[in-house]
Amino acid sequence: MATDPAGLASIRAAVADALERFLAEQRAVLSAVGADMLVWIDVMMGLLAGGKRLRPAFCYWGWRAAGGEDCPEIYVAAAALELLHASALVHDDVMDASNTRRGMPAVHRQFSARMADAGFADAAEAFGAGTAILIGDALLAWTDELYHGSGLAAHALQRGQPVLNAMRTEVVSGQYLDLVNQMTRTETVQSAMRVVLYKTAKYTIERPLHLGAALAGGPPEVAETCTEYGLPLGTAYQLRDDILGVFGDPAVTGKPVTGDISEGKRTVLIALTRERASAAQLRVLDRHLGDRRLTEAGAAQVRAVITDSGALAECETLISASVKEAIAALDGAPITEPARQALTELAVLATARAH
Amino acid sequence: MATDPAGLASIRAAVADALERFLAEQRAVLSAVGADMLVWIDVMMGLLAGGKRLRPAFCYWGWRAAGGEDCPEIYVAAAALELLHASALVHDDVMDASNTRRGMPAVHRQFSARMADAGFADAAEAFGAGTAILIGDALLAWTDELYHGSGLAAHALQRGQPVLNAMRTEVVSGQYLDLVNQMTRTETVQSAMRVVLYKTAKYTIERPLHLGAALAGGPPEVAETCTEYGLPLGTAYQLRDDILGVFGDPAVTGKPVTGDISEGKRTVLIALTRERASAAQLRVLDRHLGDRRLTEAGAAQVRAVITDSGALAECETLISASVKEAIAALDGAPITEPARQALTELAVLATARAH
Repeated sequence: MATDPAGLASIRAAVADALERFLAEQRAVLSAVGADMLVWIDVMMGLLAGGKRLRPAFCYWGWRAAGGEDCPEIYVAAAALELLHASALVHDDVMDASNTRRGMPAVHRQFSARMADAGFADAAEAFGAGTAILIGDALLAWTDELYHGSGLAAHALQRGQPVLNAMRTEVVSGQYLDLVNQMTRTETVQSAMRVVLYKTAKYTIERPLHLGAALAGGPPEVAETCTEYGLPLGTAYQLRDDILGVFGDPAVTGKPVTGDISEGKRTVLIALTRERASAAQLRVLDRHLGDRRLTEAGAAQVRAVITDSGALAECETLISASVKEAIAALDGAPITEPARQALTELAVLATARAH
Repeated sequence: MATDPAGLASIRAAVADALERFLAEQRAVLSAVGADMLVWIDVMMGLLAGGKRLRPAFCYWGWRAAGGEDCPEIYVAAAALELLHASALVHDDVMDASNTRRGMPAVHRQFSARMADAGFADAAEAFGAGTAILIGDALLAWTDELYHGSGLAAHALQRGQPVLNAMRTEVVSGQYLDLVNQMTRTETVQSAMRVVLYKTAKYTIERPLHLGAALAGGPPEVAETCTEYGLPLGTAYQLRDDILGVFGDPAVTGKPVTGDISEGKRTVLIALTRERASAAQLRVLDRHLGDRRLTEAGAAQVRAVITDSGALAECETLISASVKEAIAALDGAPITEPARQALTELAVLATARAH
């Protein structure tokens, strides 16, 4: 591997730079409305400072895969995906009533706290949720603004537009299917896998690659390779996230260690556990999953069930097989050599045991 | 006045047609995700069937004012503003916990009811709010999709983009300022007027006009006329809405007659009332404003205070003066003759006592 695998460090730096410049512009726009708007920028900067920049990285390498030359504009267009993702996170946290995100209080919690501190405790929760909805809306609208302001040629942006459209529709669809599963306690592997396809595999990997390739004017064969690589890798990425959400180090994941269990997320990992669990193990799951007051002891019991049932090992096997399938899709594919190497490295990086 | 004042009937028909075709396309997209997504389209069609189409009408007349020829594409671009507005309404209703919209249950209530009917009463509220957040997100993303898919030339869309950007940022800013006022019970005329500027005057009238004019490639003088006409008219429009929200016929407004009072909206009308009210009248206001269990008798008391304090008459005077100022701005302005006539008619239509 190179010293900067998949060029990720330089992609991150360029994306951070693009986001910083964009937010500075928006600060000026909001400042014209009033100084009381500027807290939005501070909160957004905090949120956007985090993140692994995987979607921009895949967008960049989709561009390069289709023969696009390295240039400043592609990083700006790719950075727009970070705004889209930040919007989804802010709204997701409202929907899930999550307390933290990227190691900080969730946006709605930050604004609830501000309102409570100002002496309006009764209004705090509604204010936090309402403001987070609006901030998520701004980030979503700004996705479009940054994309179209990236400096790429109009005809390139036009080629990318259908991909951006599909990506946005697919991710809200995946979130809705996920919500339905959570609420109706639907927990089959099949239903969880459908959520993974739309909410993660397409949204995080396949579509960012497609977007880059479309912007570069790549032929359909490149897009096909992106799908053959992106969908299995996306599944592997989500399964790794499922595992980290239960077994991960909170200092690394930025989420409380009891998070996924106490939120009762209907993940593939949990669905696999249910398929394999004994009656006694199922009782442990049912007792703790979705318990908002879950203790560390309860979480440890759930982890034991996931491990002892063999679901954890099965999940690891699925991850390995999917990563292998993704990398195999690059073999002999009609993409540039640097992209082939970077995508191979990204497949490993995105699904590593700690990230 | 012509038989179709401001061409509003034909604009409405063309916009309805564009929205219907767009939703049919999205139905096909969502159908690929799964049949369980199609309820989204049904709900959106119900929501988008309503509405006065004022924003598209102003966009159309901004285009014509700047010399744009009547053509199918401008109606499609204008229709995109209805998606933006529908998004704002859906999210607004979640934020305000409103029960109804356009004479139907609010979107979040529709989905809560579905979940309750399916036997998951506990999950109903969170499911309704979550789904409404996602549907609002889809409508916001689709604004961009319909705009860029309108068939207008790429360079025209590029000219319009900064206006669309400003419009989206301003409306969420206005909503935030409104939320802050509601929550902190800030009720000065000045603070309410600032909300009106961003949430209504710019968003509903000035920016749609600017968008049409920019799409047509109009010179800065046309945009200036749009501002001189749009801002006072927007204020008049909101003041009329304030009055209808308290005194309007629920059968016409589609809102419960107690709505604005029981939601405790910090409107200009209420701020004017506070400025003029006696101590006894203030006590009546404080007792009933924001009372979620407001009775018709309580609402009648509030209406009496608004009338008796002279605030209602003052509001009517402000409306008349603002409409007059708006129409005067058209006088000798560098816009086409049909646009001058239509905008004069629209000023009257948009601020009429019943609409």
